Amino acid sequence: MSRFKYLIVCAFFALAGCQYTPDWDSLDSRPLPQWYDDAKIGIFVHWGVFSVPSFDTEWFWYNWEEGYPPVVDFMEKNYRPNFTYPDFAPQFTAEFFDAHQWAGLFKASGAKYVVLTSKHHEGFCNWPSKNSWPWTSMEFGPKRNLVGELADAIRGIGPNLHFGLYHSLYEWFNPLYLDDKANSFETNDFVTRKTMPELFDLVSTYKPEIVWSDGDWEAPDWYWNSTVFLSWLFNESPVKDTVVVNDRWGIGCIGEHGSYYTVQDRFNPGVLQDHKWENCFTLDEQSWGYRRNARLFSYLTIEDVLFQLATTISCGGNVLVNVGPTHDGRIPPIMEERLRQMGDWLDVNGQAVYGSRPWAYQNDTLTPGVWYTSNNNNVYAIVLSWPEDDLLPLGSVVSTPETKVNMLGYQGELTFAAGSPGIEVTFPNMAKVKSKWAWVLELIAVSPA
Amino acid sequence: MSRFKYLIVCAFFALAGCQYTPDWDSLDSRPLPQWYDDAKIGIFVHWGVFSVPSFDTEWFWYNWEEGYPPVVDFMEKNYRPNFTYPDFAPQFTAEFFDAHQWAGLFKASGAKYVVLTSKHHEGFCNWPSKNSWPWTSMEFGPKRNLVGELADAIRGIGPNLHFGLYHSLYEWFNPLYLDDKANSFETNDFVTRKTMPELFDLVSTYKPEIVWSDGDWEAPDWYWNSTVFLSWLFNESPVKDTVVVNDRWGIGCIGEHGSYYTVQDRFNPGVLQDHKWENCFTLDEQSWGYRRNARLFSYLTIEDVLFQLATTISCGGNVLVNVGPTHDGRIPPIMEERLRQMGDWLDVNGQAVYGSRPWAYQNDTLTPGVWYTSNNNNVYAIVLSWPEDDLLPLGSVVSTPETKVNMLGYQGELTFAAGSPGIEVTFPNMAKVKSKWAWVLELIAVSPA
Amino acid sequence: MSRFKYLIVCAFFALAGCQYTPDWDSLDSRPLPQWYDDAKIGIFVHWGVFSVPSFDTEWFWYNWEEGYPPVVDFMEKNYRPNFTYPDFAPQFTAEFFDAHQWAGLFKASGAKYVVLTSKHHEGFCNWPSKNSWPWTSMEFGPKRNLVGELADAIRGIGPNLHFGLYHSLYEWFNPLYLDDKANSFETNDFVTRKTMPELFDLVSTYKPEIVWSDGDWEAPDWYWNSTVFLSWLFNESPVKDTVVVNDRWGIGCIGEHGSYYTVQDRFNPGVLQDHKWENCFTLDEQSWGYRRNARLFSYLTIEDVLFQLATTISCGGNVLVNVGPTHDGRIPPIMEERLRQMGDWLDVNGQAVYGSRPWAYQNDTLTPGVWYTSNNNNVYAIVLSWPEDDLLPLGSVVSTPETKVNMLGYQGELTFAAGSPGIEVTFPNMAKVKSKWAWVLELIAVSPA
Amino acid sequence: MSRFKYLIVCAFFALAGCQYTPDWDSLDSRPLPQWYDDAKIGIFVHWGVFSVPSFDTEWFWYNWEEGYPPVVDFMEKNYRPNFTYPDFAPQFTAEFFDAHQWAGLFKASGAKYVVLTSKHHEGFCNWPSKNSWPWTSMEFGPKRNLVGELADAIRGIGPNLHFGLYHSLYEWFNPLYLDDKANSFETNDFVTRKTMPELFDLVSTYKPEIVWSDGDWEAPDWYWNSTVFLSWLFNESPVKDTVVVNDRWGIGCIGEHGSYYTVQDRFNPGVLQDHKWENCFTLDEQSWGYRRNARLFSYLTIEDVLFQLATTISCGGNVLVNVGPTHDGRIPPIMEERLRQMGDWLDVNGQAVYGSRPWAYQNDTLTPGVWYTSNNNNVYAIVLSWPEDDLLPLGSVVSTPETKVNMLGYQGELTFAAGSPGIEVTFPNMAKVKSKWAWVLELIAVSPA
Repeated sequence: MSRFKYLIVCAFFALAGCQYTPDWDSLDSRPLPQWYDDAKIGIFVHWGVFSVPSFDTEWFWYNWEEGYPPVVDFMEKNYRPNFTYPDFAPQFTAEFFDAHQWAGLFKASGAKYVVLTSKHHEGFCNWPSKNSWPWTSMEFGPKRNLVGELADAIRGIGPNLHFGLYHSLYEWFNPLYLDDKANSFETNDFVTRKTMPELFDLVSTYKPEIVWSDGDWEAPDWYWNSTVFLSWLFNESPVKDTVVVNDRWGIGCIGEHGSYYTVQDRFNPGVLQDHKWENCFTLDEQSWGYRRNARLFSYLTIEDVLFQLATTISCGGNVLVNVGPTHDGRIPPIMEERLRQMGDWLDVNGQAVYGSRPWAYQNDTLTPGVWYTSNNNNVYAIVLSWPEDDLLPLGSVVSTPETKVNMLGYQGELTFAAGSPGIEVTFPNMAKVKSKWAWVLELIAVSPA
Repeated sequence: MSRFKYLIVCAFFALAGCQYTPDWDSLDSRPLPQWYDDAKIGIFVHWGVFSVPSFDTEWFWYNWEEGYPPVVDFMEKNYRPNFTYPDFAPQFTAEFFDAHQWAGLFKASGAKYVVLTSKHHEGFCNWPSKNSWPWTSMEFGPKRNLVGELADAIRGIGPNLHFGLYHSLYEWFNPLYLDDKANSFETNDFVTRKTMPELFDLVSTYKPEIVWSDGDWEAPDWYWNSTVFLSWLFNESPVKDTVVVNDRWGIGCIGEHGSYYTVQDRFNPGVLQDHKWENCFTLDEQSWGYRRNARLFSYLTIEDVLFQLATTISCGGNVLVNVGPTHDGRIPPIMEERLRQMGDWLDVNGQAVYGSRPWAYQNDTLTPGVWYTSNNNNVYAIVLSWPEDDLLPLGSVVSTPETKVNMLGYQGELTFAAGSPGIEVTFPNMAKVKSKWAWVLELIAVSPA
Repeated sequence: MSRFKYLIVCAFFALAGCQYTPDWDSLDSRPLPQWYDDAKIGIFVHWGVFSVPSFDTEWFWYNWEEGYPPVVDFMEKNYRPNFTYPDFAPQFTAEFFDAHQWAGLFKASGAKYVVLTSKHHEGFCNWPSKNSWPWTSMEFGPKRNLVGELADAIRGIGPNLHFGLYHSLYEWFNPLYLDDKANSFETNDFVTRKTMPELFDLVSTYKPEIVWSDGDWEAPDWYWNSTVFLSWLFNESPVKDTVVVNDRWGIGCIGEHGSYYTVQDRFNPGVLQDHKWENCFTLDEQSWGYRRNARLFSYLTIEDVLFQLATTISCGGNVLVNVGPTHDGRIPPIMEERLRQMGDWLDVNGQAVYGSRPWAYQNDTLTPGVWYTSNNNNVYAIVLSWPEDDLLPLGSVVSTPETKVNMLGYQGELTFAAGSPGIEVTFPNMAKVKSKWAWVLELIAVSPA
Repeated sequence: MSRFKYLIVCAFFALAGCQYTPDWDSLDSRPLPQWYDDAKIGIFVHWGVFSVPSFDTEWFWYNWEEGYPPVVDFMEKNYRPNFTYPDFAPQFTAEFFDAHQWAGLFKASGAKYVVLTSKHHEGFCNWPSKNSWPWTSMEFGPKRNLVGELADAIRGIGPNLHFGLYHSLYEWFNPLYLDDKANSFETNDFVTRKTMPELFDLVSTYKPEIVWSDGDWEAPDWYWNSTVFLSWLFNESPVKDTVVVNDRWGIGCIGEHGSYYTVQDRFNPGVLQDHKWENCFTLDEQSWGYRRNARLFSYLTIEDVLFQLATTISCGGNVLVNVGPTHDGRIPPIMEERLRQMGDWLDVNGQAVYGSRPWAYQNDTLTPGVWYTSNNNNVYAIVLSWPEDDLLPLGSVVSTPETKVNMLGYQGELTFAAGSPGIEVTFPNMAKVKSKWAWVLELIAVSPA
């Protein structure tokens, strides 16, 4: 767009009383809605036709077409020749899907928001999209509006559990997209006829407070019409005041634009970021979608989950913990267990998490595996491993005469000694401590070294 | 369109060297390509996802949604609750479909053209339409381009078997269509995004010499953009010189515009028409699509077929005889038998049919069941029933001194006597006659009464 | 069995008031029940799990295991690896099966008895056999007693339509049988536990008036315990007075023992037999079970059927015309058509068939294609082709002063002249004749040449 | 059997050099093979066609036929009418079943034996039984010999993992059984033709060292022919020296006869038994077969498992921990986790378990939740809960001057004080302790109070 046209558009927007113009400068100037930074913990749900083969990953279709041997072999062994990926759709039955049960579990996990795949790269819509007919969950398989049911159930939990939607911009095999791509994105039929109307429909109908965009990486944002969509989202949409978006809106956007940054799968930088970010990771290390042949060793332990949580929150990020439900609508017990374990931990230690802010230090300078947050003038040290001989030296903390040290979930103060440098905290009798995995010290009236 | 705009468009077309402007006056001025009038006999093929349940009719989906009890009952008895119509698609397997076998059979039937449903009202495309992805025969079920395979096989037979395509403008449940309809057709997303691109694609790729339009009846032609499509078809398309279209291009078009008229199912007026027309009828009286529970009595006998043929050709029409293949790609033997019987009859009597023109009389004024055609100065009387006592009075024919009467498939002249009025023909010994069902008299040097 | 033991057994039977002892001499002495010889026309029905693949023949399973390439190839192309033949059973759904509809059709065909496969070589029982549980139509697929439903419906038609059952002695893959076979039939677990109890059950419960035995050929009758079963059948069973059995009761039995002989598939000797026999043949020349890919040319024409009928009846045989219903319980229209055509022919010409006896000559000595029967002192000549120039010389017939010649379905006597030898009959105007395919002359007061 | 006959039979057995006669007195005199008592921990595997619906329990079929509403409702909602239970069999695909993977997991769980359902009450055989053809895993679904594959894999692990088989005597719906039952078990066709040959086949072919009989409860042992089978098993079979059997061999046998007793599901008496016994329990509290809709709360925690283990071993029993694999051959991760947790615990604490014997006391007289075993002169106290204030009073133990107290998985002795009565043990710093859930004290040189 020429500079001149841009000014005209901006002027138009301004005259229309709109706060944000469809350009990154303006869009990026929007403050992050507070709720998101306070929430810290979200649940990611990958569900779609890929949940039927539930083999390899949610990229099953793509890998199959690419000739990835395990997938090709799986199809040859278990299906008739000429069976197609769309042929799986009728088996996406969701007969055990109970949105209220899911919502209850997500709440119990301590999460404050939930992000469901409304549509993954396969293009199958989990809501009755007019623009995808009949490639949706209403015309095939479940014969249900999965997005709608979950949206209602999540909102039924109350204002502390926010509903969000994942949406893939591109679709691997949609010929409209492939044509645009073959035209070097100088045509945009796909965006005009599919992406944009679906995004508008999703936001208007289901009012997600997160729009988790994906599949942007092959085309520039002007192809995706991202800034126009976002300006509508921020100016006009029913969620304009609270909605949060990630940063996947076209080549080069990642880590540059958006309410928060994601960078890439399992982004976990280990150092403080100067922009709000999110660390999404999946309980089955090898797949976001359900994978039948995932064995126990593929699943994160609760210690792994808490490692992600501590290292992320302390550096200013949120965690988005992924589960992959089955084709028949279940969240497998091993995933339920991890979520409930996280919930148990947060019940004890949530003070260090919800509403917290990064502290002067992110991790301790002396002892590895100790991560800091701050909340209400207190500093919280999340200690991932119980210290040798119960003595924990903290190099980043300087005590004051008023300093007190507590452990969340333990009754009674801890003793500590001024060290050189920092302090040394004596851990209590473990048998008296509530938390089973990572332990949080509440440091009152301390200052950074 | 205002008169002024219309003139401009016409001027543009004229400047572009185009013969036809996108208005009915111009389009209707195009002469009917000769081949079609000469061909007389075509085969209609109804094939789609409806061939999977193969119950009720090809309107199965619609009737189900409307609550038609036999269909509702069939689904309740034979499928799980929540099974959807699109869920049938993976079972459309076509494993026995051999386009060359079909083409051979159609040729043997004596037909000169074949019209296949590229897409019926269900919207499922029997070719890999980019605009219907993945609701096509390439992404579901057969994983084959059914239109393409048949087009090639039909053309492989030679220039005397023409390939045509049926195409439904509307789709019962396509939300884009339903939205346009709810908007009183003042929007036309469906046409822009689906109908038009698919029609252009079909014609450009498969070069059908018949475009058999259907499903037009709920909207005016300007909604369907019919005249623009037809002007392209007649001016620019790869089949511009030979293509023939029917008359279903919007409310009010039927019987008014188009290369030939159809009026409605089983149109058979019994009197001469002043415009080329086509009588399409189906071998299973109750359905165009395959119907598993059709019993013998539902199928037309060869006598029924020849009745349709005689009464149609004599009045200036063509017949389009419908078959409904099965989900696995077979043309059931009872249909094959009828087609081959028709072919046997045409082998003997084709002279009265191919290239014929209506005569002065269409049917005889004295004897019912006698229908006339003319060809190369001869008159042909198709006699549907063998006459009582072998004597056939013909009231519409006046003999001359040069008059001779033959029976096709019988060696030797027939005797006849001048009657008052007309003539009386003595039929030969039936045991010496080749034709088994309807008999054709060749009347040389006769004049109409 | 030693001669001594045999005498003891016979004595026992005699004491028990039994008419027949379990030896062939005694069993073969039983007169053929009159109804069977009078009936002439029966319908054979091959139905089972093989009707699901409905490919190749009812020997599908065997051919597959034997590595017959077309079957192996069919399975590889259309099914997942490891799909087994028994896995087909749930798809044997029979949802369109209406026993009353079948019975009505069989009656309309002119048949006087019906023989259904209760169990073919695959071992699947079409009735809830306790000895085959759960490999039956009650536990799999239809969840119906197919034998019972048809037995009731056939009997509901009245005493002129008899019900019979086909039963395969051996089962290709039943391990009990294979073990006995491996033991050179010196063990007989299979017979004791499977064959005998099932045969007793079938007869006692469904009272078939024909027991059409098959699959006997690998073992001697003493293995099958055939004579004991038959002596029970003839002495004690509920059908002892009317039941008829064929001749497949062990190696060497065929053509030697039984109420009537079958010899082998499509037995049609063309000369008079000195024992009652049956010619079974199938409408689809290549298969007894339904074969989806059978094209029209595989089906017998009505002329083919009447050829079989005429050449069989005249030589003392019955015909057993086979149909293969589909997995969903339909008799395809092409088969229905043949049956109804046969019924139409028999409506006109039944006098020459039902209750007839072979005549002095079976076929004419002068003219080929003329076959004789006799009934009530009249002689009937079935003329398969209309004679050249309407003149039919009959070399085997000598006229008397009282001789009259009629054609069934034609009003008025035919003229004839004494020939040397025989007579020459003048055929009437074909247009006045009712029968469309084979013509029957009624010869009154003639004697054989 | 009369006393006289009995003596004859016994004499025959004696003459034949057999050790055990087919009567309970003799059979019960056989000493328990040592390995079983030493093993303590086994894995139970419930797998069959019930794993396909994987709903309700392994009694799905029975409950369905009985009209149990949840099952009836499940079938109505998810399957076509007339779908039968055997129709599930083709979906028992087992494509992920890897016997070596299972065997590795079972070894890692610390178990010393594995018991697989060769056939449950549904009658489906997980091996190619000749007497069940084709209702087996070789003819349907997996097309594999599941029993054989697992037997080989288990034995491949080495002599410390024993292979056993569960076998149901009765089959709910086998008509042979139902007939015998209707005859008050005075006939025994079912036993002669099915149960006995299958038991002999199983033992001879797969050499199970445990025969876990079930489904005996409706009939007396003489109907089942149990004593004859067992005398063969103990005298002649390939596993005669090492095989162990449970006590379900006919009405009244339970808790009376057999190598060990089971009494009933989840037998756990809490007091010492005077005969070897086994406590079988299932990780999903509500079902032995896989249950898709089991949520986390249905699964035992590791604490629950260790409670069962401690309370059982101390009272002389073994535990048999049940898992229910899926229709496609997977052991779900939540079950794998429990098994591995148990294995981790046994790695630390196995000394208190394997080869142990009950001690003078089974549980402590002062402190609840403390269970004793003895091994090599040491006493082991399994402490299910960490004691309040780290002080554990043990009322049943009296110390001596040589007494030492260790905790398994903790380096260094524990301090203790003589109490009145018993002793009081001071628990160590929990942070230094290896075991995470239940803690085992090794008491050296103590005596019972």
